[in-house]
Amino acid sequence: MGRTSDARNKILSAAQALIELRGYSALGVAEICKAAGVPKGSFYYFFDSKEALALAVIDEHWAAQKQAWTRILGSDAEPLQRLRTLFEETEATQRAGQQSCGTVSGCMFGNLTLEMSNQTESIRERLQEIFEAQVDMVESVVAEALARQDVTVTDTREAARAVVAQLEGQVLFAKLYNSTQRLGPLWANCLALLGAAAPREAVAAV
Amino acid sequence: MGRTSDARNKILSAAQALIELRGYSALGVAEICKAAGVPKGSFYYFFDSKEALALAVIDEHWAAQKQAWTRILGSDAEPLQRLRTLFEETEATQRAGQQSCGTVSGCMFGNLTLEMSNQTESIRERLQEIFEAQVDMVESVVAEALARQDVTVTDTREAARAVVAQLEGQVLFAKLYNSTQRLGPLWANCLALLGAAAPREAVAAV
Repeated sequence: MGRTSDARNKILSAAQALIELRGYSALGVAEICKAAGVPKGSFYYFFDSKEALALAVIDEHWAAQKQAWTRILGSDAEPLQRLRTLFEETEATQRAGQQSCGTVSGCMFGNLTLEMSNQTESIRERLQEIFEAQVDMVESVVAEALARQDVTVTDTREAARAVVAQLEGQVLFAKLYNSTQRLGPLWANCLALLGAAAPREAVAAV
Repeated sequence: MGRTSDARNKILSAAQALIELRGYSALGVAEICKAAGVPKGSFYYFFDSKEALALAVIDEHWAAQKQAWTRILGSDAEPLQRLRTLFEETEATQRAGQQSCGTVSGCMFGNLTLEMSNQTESIRERLQEIFEAQVDMVESVVAEALARQDVTVTDTREAARAVVAQLEGQVLFAKLYNSTQRLGPLWANCLALLGAAAPREAVAAV
Protein backbone atom coordinates (compact mmCIF):
# COMPACT_ATOMS: atom_id res chain seq x y z
CA MET A 1 0.00 0.00 0.00
CA GLY A 2 2.85 2.34 0.87
CA ARG A 3 4.59 1.53 -2.40
CA THR A 4 1.34 1.76 -4.33
CA SER A 5 0.51 5.32 -3.29
CA ASP A 6 4.16 6.20 -3.74
CA ALA A 7 3.96 5.32 -7.44
CA ARG A 8 0.74 7.29 -7.81
CA ASN A 9 2.35 10.32 -6.19
CA LYS A 10 5.39 10.02 -8.45
CA ILE A 11 3.16 10.02 -11.51
CA LEU A 12 1.22 13.03 -10.19
CA SER A 13 4.36 15.02 -9.41
CA ALA A 14 5.98 14.25 -12.75
CA ALA A 15 2.78 15.12 -14.61
CA GLN A 16 2.37 18.38 -12.72
CA ALA A 17 5.94 19.45 -13.51
CA LEU A 18 5.60 18.49 -17.18
CA ILE A 19 2.21 20.20 -17.56
CA GLU A 20 3.59 23.39 -15.97
CA LEU A 21 6.50 23.28 -18.40
CA ARG A 22 4.91 22.19 -21.66
CA GLY A 23 1.14 22.06 -21.31
CA TYR A 24 -1.09 19.04 -21.59
CA SER A 25 -1.54 18.28 -25.29
CA ALA A 26 2.14 17.79 -26.01
CA LEU A 27 2.55 15.13 -23.31
CA GLY A 28 2.34 11.38 -23.71
CA VAL A 29 1.73 8.76 -21.05
CA ALA A 30 5.07 7.06 -21.83
CA GLU A 31 6.95 10.31 -21.23
CA ILE A 32 5.15 10.94 -17.95
CA CYS A 33 5.97 7.43 -16.71
CA LYS A 34 9.60 7.79 -17.74
CA ALA A 35 9.89 11.09 -15.84
CA ALA A 36 8.14 9.51 -12.84
CA GLY A 37 10.39 6.45 -12.97
CA VAL A 38 7.47 4.01 -12.92
CA PRO A 39 6.54 1.30 -15.46
CA LYS A 40 3.83 2.24 -17.94
CA GLY A 41 1.64 -0.57 -16.60
CA SER A 42 1.39 1.27 -13.26
CA PHE A 43 -0.13 4.26 -14.99
CA TYR A 44 -3.29 2.47 -16.02
CA TYR A 45 -3.55 0.88 -12.59
CA PHE A 46 -4.03 4.35 -11.08
CA PHE A 47 -5.55 6.35 -13.93
CA ASP A 48 -8.09 5.39 -16.59
CA SER A 49 -6.68 7.85 -19.08
CA LYS A 50 -4.44 10.86 -19.56
CA GLU A 51 -7.55 13.00 -19.00
CA ALA A 52 -8.16 11.34 -15.62
CA LEU A 53 -4.55 12.13 -14.70
CA ALA A 54 -5.00 15.76 -15.75
CA LEU A 55 -8.06 16.04 -13.48
CA ALA A 56 -6.09 14.53 -10.59
CA VAL A 57 -3.22 16.98 -11.19
CA ILE A 58 -5.69 19.88 -11.26
CA ASP A 59 -7.36 18.68 -8.03
CA GLU A 60 -4.06 18.27 -6.24
CA HIS A 61 -2.81 21.69 -7.34
CA TRP A 62 -6.08 23.34 -6.33
CA ALA A 63 -6.09 21.62 -2.91
CA ALA A 64 -2.72 23.22 -2.15
CA GLN A 65 -3.61 26.60 -3.61
CA LYS A 66 -7.00 26.66 -1.88
CA GLN A 67 -5.31 26.05 1.45
CA ALA A 68 -2.98 29.01 0.83
CA TRP A 69 -5.82 31.29 -0.33
CA THR A 70 -7.93 30.30 2.70
CA ARG A 71 -5.05 31.10 5.06
CA ILE A 72 -4.41 34.48 3.41
CA LEU A 73 -7.96 35.64 2.67
CA GLY A 74 -9.40 34.33 5.95
CA SER A 75 -6.77 35.97 8.16
CA ASP A 76 -7.39 38.65 10.81
CA ALA A 77 -5.76 41.38 8.73
CA GLU A 78 -7.82 44.23 7.27
CA PRO A 79 -9.70 43.05 4.16
CA LEU A 80 -7.73 45.02 1.57
CA GLN A 81 -4.44 44.02 3.20
CA ARG A 82 -5.42 40.37 2.73
CA LEU A 83 -5.81 40.95 -1.00
CA ARG A 84 -2.43 42.66 -1.04
CA THR A 85 -0.86 39.64 0.68
CA LEU A 86 -2.50 37.37 -1.90
CA PHE A 87 -0.79 39.29 -4.72
CA GLU A 88 2.55 39.32 -2.90
CA GLU A 89 2.42 35.58 -2.28
CA THR A 90 1.41 34.95 -5.90
CA GLU A 91 4.48 36.92 -6.99
CA ALA A 92 6.69 35.01 -4.53
CA THR A 93 5.36 31.65 -5.78
CA GLN A 94 5.98 32.59 -9.42
CA ARG A 95 9.48 33.84 -8.53
CA ALA A 96 10.30 30.58 -6.74
CA GLY A 97 9.11 28.63 -9.80
CA GLN A 98 11.22 30.79 -12.08
CA GLN A 99 14.29 30.25 -9.92
CA SER A 100 13.83 26.48 -9.93
CA CYS A 101 13.00 25.93 -13.62
CA GLY A 102 14.25 29.08 -15.38
CA THR A 103 10.91 30.42 -16.55
CA VAL A 104 7.75 31.89 -15.05
CA SER A 105 5.23 29.10 -15.58
CA GLY A 106 2.13 31.20 -14.87
CA CYS A 107 -1.14 29.93 -13.46
CA MET A 108 -1.77 26.25 -14.19
CA PHE A 109 -5.53 26.84 -14.23
CA GLY A 110 -5.25 29.77 -16.65
CA ASN A 111 -2.85 27.81 -18.84
CA LEU A 112 -5.18 24.81 -19.00
CA THR A 113 -8.23 27.03 -19.56
CA LEU A 114 -6.74 28.48 -22.71
CA GLU A 115 -5.26 25.19 -23.87
CA MET A 116 -7.97 22.71 -22.95
CA SER A 117 -11.33 24.19 -22.04
CA ASN A 118 -12.71 23.93 -25.58
CA GLN A 119 -11.55 20.35 -26.02
CA THR A 120 -12.47 18.44 -22.87
CA GLU A 121 -15.73 19.16 -21.08
CA SER A 122 -14.68 17.45 -17.85
CA ILE A 123 -11.61 19.70 -17.61
CA ARG A 124 -13.67 22.78 -18.51
CA GLU A 125 -16.13 21.98 -15.71
CA ARG A 126 -13.40 21.42 -13.12
CA LEU A 127 -11.67 24.68 -14.07
CA GLN A 128 -14.99 26.54 -13.88
CA GLU A 129 -15.51 25.22 -10.34
CA ILE A 130 -12.03 26.34 -9.32
CA PHE A 131 -12.39 29.86 -10.71
CA GLU A 132 -15.85 30.14 -9.13
CA ALA A 133 -14.30 29.17 -5.80
CA GLN A 134 -11.55 31.77 -6.24
CA VAL A 135 -14.14 34.44 -7.05
CA ASP A 136 -16.19 33.34 -3.99
CA MET A 137 -13.18 33.81 -1.73
CA VAL A 138 -12.27 37.21 -3.15
CA GLU A 139 -15.91 38.32 -3.10
CA SER A 140 -16.23 37.58 0.57
CA VAL A 141 -13.22 39.84 1.31
CA VAL A 142 -14.64 42.57 -0.95
CA ALA A 143 -17.96 42.35 0.91
CA GLU A 144 -16.13 42.80 4.23
CA ALA A 145 -14.26 45.79 2.81
CA LEU A 146 -17.56 47.24 1.56
CA ALA A 147 -19.18 46.86 5.00
CA ARG A 148 -16.26 48.90 6.41
CA GLN A 149 -16.67 51.44 3.59
CA ASP A 150 -13.12 50.76 2.44
CA VAL A 151 -14.36 50.26 -1.13
CA THR A 152 -17.21 51.68 -3.20
CA VAL A 153 -18.26 48.85 -5.51
CA THR A 154 -21.93 48.28 -6.25
CA ASP A 155 -21.67 44.62 -7.35
CA THR A 156 -19.30 42.60 -5.17
CA ARG A 157 -19.48 39.53 -7.47
CA GLU A 158 -18.53 41.46 -10.58
CA ALA A 159 -15.83 43.30 -8.64
CA ALA A 160 -14.34 40.00 -7.46
CA ARG A 161 -14.38 38.67 -11.02
CA ALA A 162 -12.57 41.79 -12.21
CA VAL A 163 -9.87 41.29 -9.55
CA VAL A 164 -9.35 37.64 -10.54
CA ALA A 165 -9.39 38.58 -14.25
CA GLN A 166 -6.73 41.24 -13.63
CA LEU A 167 -4.67 38.67 -11.74
CA GLU A 168 -4.91 36.17 -14.63
CA GLY A 169 -4.11 38.87 -17.19
CA GLN A 170 -1.01 40.10 -15.36
CA VAL A 171 0.18 36.53 -14.70
CA LEU A 172 -0.13 35.98 -18.47
CA PHE A 173 2.18 38.97 -18.99
CA ALA A 174 4.57 37.71 -16.29
CA LYS A 175 4.83 34.45 -18.24
CA LEU A 176 5.15 36.18 -21.62
CA TYR A 177 7.98 38.45 -20.42
CA ASN A 178 9.38 35.84 -18.03
CA SER A 179 9.34 38.53 -15.36
CA THR A 180 7.57 38.46 -12.02
CA GLN A 181 7.91 42.26 -11.84
CA ARG A 182 4.84 42.34 -14.08
CA LEU A 183 2.87 41.41 -10.96
CA GLY A 184 3.93 44.56 -9.10
CA PRO A 185 0.97 46.72 -10.20
CA LEU A 186 -1.66 44.19 -9.06
CA TRP A 187 -2.26 45.91 -5.77
CA ALA A 188 -2.76 49.41 -7.19
CA ASN A 189 -4.96 48.02 -9.99
CA CYS A 190 -7.05 46.10 -7.46
CA LEU A 191 -7.62 49.27 -5.42
CA ALA A 192 -8.69 51.10 -8.58
CA LEU A 193 -11.05 48.28 -9.61
CA LEU A 194 -12.65 48.29 -6.17
CA GLY A 195 -12.94 52.05 -6.01
CA ALA A 196 -10.97 51.92 -2.77
CA ALA A 197 -11.60 54.89 -0.51
CA ALA A 198 -8.16 56.45 -0.93
CA PRO A 199 -6.30 54.46 -3.58
CA ARG A 200 -3.70 57.14 -4.40
CA GLU A 201 -2.60 57.52 -0.80
CA ALA A 202 -2.60 53.76 -0.28
CA VAL A 203 -0.43 53.27 -3.34
CA ALA A 204 1.90 56.08 -2.31
CA ALA A 205 2.29 54.49 1.11
CA VAL A 206 3.43 51.15 -0.33
CA MET B 1 2.00 32.12 -59.23
CA GLY B 2 -1.75 32.45 -58.63
CA ARG B 3 -1.98 28.77 -57.72
CA THR B 4 1.16 28.94 -55.60
CA SER B 5 -0.03 31.70 -53.31
CA ASP B 6 -3.44 30.06 -53.24
CA ALA B 7 -1.94 26.91 -51.68
CA ARG B 8 -0.02 29.02 -49.14
CA ASN B 9 -3.23 30.83 -48.19
CA LYS B 10 -5.11 27.55 -47.85
CA ILE B 11 -2.44 26.26 -45.47
CA LEU B 12 -2.53 29.51 -43.47
CA SER B 13 -6.33 29.50 -43.19
CA ALA B 14 -6.50 25.85 -42.18
CA ALA B 15 -3.72 26.32 -39.62
CA GLN B 16 -5.38 29.40 -38.15
CA ALA B 17 -8.70 27.57 -37.75
CA LEU B 18 -7.04 24.51 -36.21
CA ILE B 19 -4.87 26.57 -33.84
CA GLU B 20 -7.94 28.54 -32.67
CA LEU B 21 -9.74 25.27 -32.05
CA ARG B 22 -7.07 23.04 -30.56
CA GLY B 23 -3.91 25.03 -29.94
CA TYR B 24 -0.52 24.54 -31.53
CA SER B 25 1.13 21.56 -29.80
CA ALA B 26 -1.56 19.07 -30.68
CA LEU B 27 -1.34 19.77 -34.42
CA GLY B 28 0.69 17.91 -36.99
CA VAL B 29 1.77 19.08 -40.44
CA ALA B 30 -0.07 16.16 -42.10
CA GLU B 31 -3.34 17.18 -40.42
CA ILE B 32 -2.94 20.81 -41.45
CA CYS B 33 -2.30 19.81 -45.08
CA LYS B 34 -5.28 17.49 -45.08
CA ALA B 35 -7.55 20.27 -43.75
CA ALA B 36 -6.08 22.69 -46.31
CA GLY B 37 -6.53 20.18 -49.13
CA VAL B 38 -2.92 20.51 -50.30
CA PRO B 39 -0.25 17.80 -50.66
CA LYS B 40 2.25 17.59 -47.80
CA GLY B 41 5.08 18.40 -50.20
CA SER B 42 3.59 21.88 -50.70
CA PHE B 43 3.90 22.60 -47.01
CA TYR B 44 7.69 22.52 -46.97
CA TYR B 45 7.81 24.54 -50.17
CA PHE B 46 6.18 27.43 -48.30
CA PHE B 47 7.26 26.87 -44.70
CA ASP B 48 10.54 25.62 -43.23
CA SER B 49 8.81 24.13 -40.22
CA LYS B 50 5.63 24.05 -38.18
CA GLU B 51 7.13 26.87 -36.09
CA ALA B 52 7.58 29.01 -39.22
CA LEU B 53 3.93 28.37 -40.06
CA ALA B 54 2.87 29.38 -36.54
CA LEU B 55 4.76 32.67 -36.91
CA ALA B 56 3.07 33.30 -40.26
CA VAL B 57 -0.37 32.57 -38.75
CA ILE B 58 0.40 34.95 -35.86
CA ASP B 59 1.57 37.68 -38.28
CA GLU B 60 -1.48 37.33 -40.49
CA HIS B 61 -3.86 37.39 -37.51
CA TRP B 62 -2.12 40.43 -36.05
CA ALA B 63 -2.14 42.30 -39.38
CA ALA B 64 -5.94 41.99 -39.45
CA GLN B 65 -6.42 42.80 -35.76
CA LYS B 66 -4.00 45.73 -35.89
CA GLN B 67 -5.97 47.22 -38.75
CA ALA B 68 -9.18 46.94 -36.70
CA TRP B 69 -7.55 48.39 -33.57
CA THR B 70 -6.06 51.27 -35.57
CA ARG B 71 -9.46 52.06 -37.09
CA ILE B 72 -11.19 51.98 -33.69
CA LEU B 73 -8.55 53.60 -31.47
CA GLY B 74 -7.53 56.21 -34.05
CA SER B 75 -11.08 57.38 -34.78
CA ASP B 76 -12.46 60.87 -34.15
CA ALA B 77 -14.63 59.70 -31.23
CA GLU B 78 -13.86 60.83 -27.66
CA PRO B 79 -10.93 58.81 -26.25
CA LEU B 80 -12.89 56.78 -23.70
CA GLN B 81 -15.60 56.03 -26.26
CA ARG B 82 -12.95 54.53 -28.53
CA LEU B 83 -11.96 52.11 -25.77
CA ARG B 84 -15.62 51.24 -25.28
CA THR B 85 -15.94 50.50 -29.01
CA LEU B 86 -12.84 48.30 -28.80
CA PHE B 87 -14.49 46.18 -26.09
CA GLU B 88 -17.79 46.02 -27.98
CA GLU B 89 -16.08 44.91 -31.19
CA THR B 90 -14.03 42.35 -29.26
CA GLU B 91 -17.26 40.93 -27.88
CA ALA B 92 -18.87 40.93 -31.36
CA THR B 93 -15.84 39.13 -32.84
CA GLN B 94 -15.90 36.47 -30.13
CA ARG B 95 -19.66 36.05 -30.57
CA ALA B 96 -19.28 35.60 -34.33
CA GLY B 97 -16.58 32.97 -33.72
CA GLN B 98 -18.82 31.18 -31.23
CA GLN B 99 -21.70 31.16 -33.72
CA SER B 100 -19.55 29.70 -36.46
CA CYS B 101 -17.66 27.04 -34.50
CA GLY B 102 -19.76 26.48 -31.36
CA THR B 103 -17.27 27.75 -28.79
CA VAL B 104 -15.66 31.02 -27.76
CA SER B 105 -12.08 30.57 -28.95
CA GLY B 106 -10.63 33.48 -27.00
CA CYS B 107 -7.62 35.56 -27.99
CA MET B 108 -5.18 33.67 -30.22
CA PHE B 109 -2.26 35.67 -28.80
CA GLY B 110 -3.26 34.97 -25.20
CA ASN B 111 -3.83 31.30 -26.00
CA LEU B 112 -0.41 30.95 -27.62
CA THR B 113 1.27 32.95 -24.83
CA LEU B 114 0.12 30.46 -22.22
CA GLU B 115 0.70 27.43 -24.43
CA MET B 116 3.92 28.31 -26.21
CA SER B 117 5.85 31.25 -24.77
CA ASN B 118 8.03 29.08 -22.52
CA GLN B 119 8.83 26.63 -25.31
CA THR B 120 9.72 28.61 -28.40
CA GLU B 121 11.69 31.84 -28.09
CA SER B 122 10.80 33.07 -31.58
CA ILE B 123 7.08 32.80 -30.76
CA ARG B 124 7.62 34.43 -27.36
CA GLU B 125 9.37 37.39 -29.01
CA ARG B 126 6.68 37.83 -31.65
CA LEU B 127 3.91 37.74 -29.04
CA GLN B 128 5.82 40.25 -26.89
CA GLU B 129 5.98 42.63 -29.86
CA ILE B 130 2.25 42.25 -30.48
CA PHE B 131 1.25 42.91 -26.86
CA GLU B 132 3.66 45.88 -26.71
CA ALA B 133 1.97 47.27 -29.83
CA GLN B 134 -1.47 46.77 -28.24
CA VAL B 135 -0.33 48.55 -25.08
CA ASP B 136 1.16 51.37 -27.22
CA MET B 137 -2.17 51.89 -28.95
CA VAL B 138 -4.19 51.86 -25.73
CA GLU B 139 -1.65 54.11 -24.00
CA SER B 140 -1.95 56.74 -26.66
CA VAL B 141 -5.73 56.88 -26.13
CA VAL B 142 -5.25 57.01 -22.34
CA ALA B 143 -2.80 59.92 -22.79
CA GLU B 144 -5.39 61.79 -24.87
CA ALA B 145 -8.03 61.12 -22.20
CA LEU B 146 -5.60 62.36 -19.53
CA ALA B 147 -4.93 65.59 -21.44
CA ARG B 148 -8.70 66.20 -21.45
CA GLN B 149 -8.85 65.35 -17.72
CA ASP B 150 -11.25 62.49 -18.47
CA VAL B 151 -9.06 60.13 -16.41
CA THR B 152 -6.80 60.51 -13.40
CA VAL B 153 -4.01 57.98 -13.92
CA THR B 154 -0.45 58.90 -13.02
CA ASP B 155 1.33 56.34 -15.22
CA THR B 156 -0.27 56.00 -18.65
CA ARG B 157 1.91 52.99 -19.61
CA GLU B 158 0.97 51.00 -16.52
CA ALA B 159 -2.67 52.00 -16.92
CA ALA B 160 -2.68 50.77 -20.53
CA ARG B 161 -1.11 47.48 -19.43
CA ALA B 162 -3.83 47.10 -16.78
CA VAL B 163 -6.54 47.63 -19.41
CA VAL B 164 -5.02 45.03 -21.77
CA ALA B 165 -4.49 42.62 -18.83
CA GLN B 166 -8.15 43.02 -17.82
CA LEU B 167 -9.15 42.36 -21.44
CA GLU B 168 -7.06 39.17 -21.58
CA GLY B 169 -8.38 38.01 -18.19
CA GLN B 170 -12.03 38.51 -19.12
CA VAL B 171 -11.52 36.88 -22.53
CA LEU B 172 -10.06 33.91 -20.63
CA PHE B 173 -13.30 33.74 -18.62
CA ALA B 174 -15.40 34.12 -21.79
CA LYS B 175 -13.60 31.08 -23.19
CA LEU B 176 -13.84 29.12 -19.94
CA TYR B 177 -17.60 29.70 -19.62
CA ASN B 178 -18.15 29.71 -23.41
CA SER B 179 -20.05 32.96 -22.91
CA THR B 180 -19.35 36.32 -24.49
CA GLN B 181 -21.47 37.96 -21.77
CA ARG B 182 -18.36 37.71 -19.62
CA LEU B 183 -17.01 40.62 -21.69
CA GLY B 184 -19.87 42.93 -20.66
CA PRO B 185 -18.11 44.42 -17.60
CA LEU B 186 -14.97 45.41 -19.56
CA TRP B 187 -16.10 48.98 -20.05
CA ALA B 188 -16.97 49.66 -16.39
CA ASN B 189 -13.75 47.94 -15.25
CA CYS B 190 -11.71 50.01 -17.68
CA LEU B 191 -13.24 53.23 -16.33
CA ALA B 192 -12.39 52.12 -12.80
CA LEU B 193 -8.81 51.20 -13.73
CA LEU B 194 -8.32 54.60 -15.38
CA GLY B 195 -9.90 56.52 -12.51
CA ALA B 196 -12.33 58.00 -15.01
CA ALA B 197 -13.80 61.30 -13.90
CA ALA B 198 -17.34 60.02 -13.39
CA PRO B 199 -17.30 56.25 -13.86
CA ARG B 200 -20.54 55.55 -11.97
CA GLU B 201 -22.58 57.96 -14.08
CA ALA B 202 -20.91 56.72 -17.24
CA VAL B 203 -21.77 53.15 -16.34
CA ALA B 204 -25.32 54.08 -15.40
CA ALA B 205 -25.71 55.83 -18.75
CA VAL B 206 -24.74 52.72 -20.72
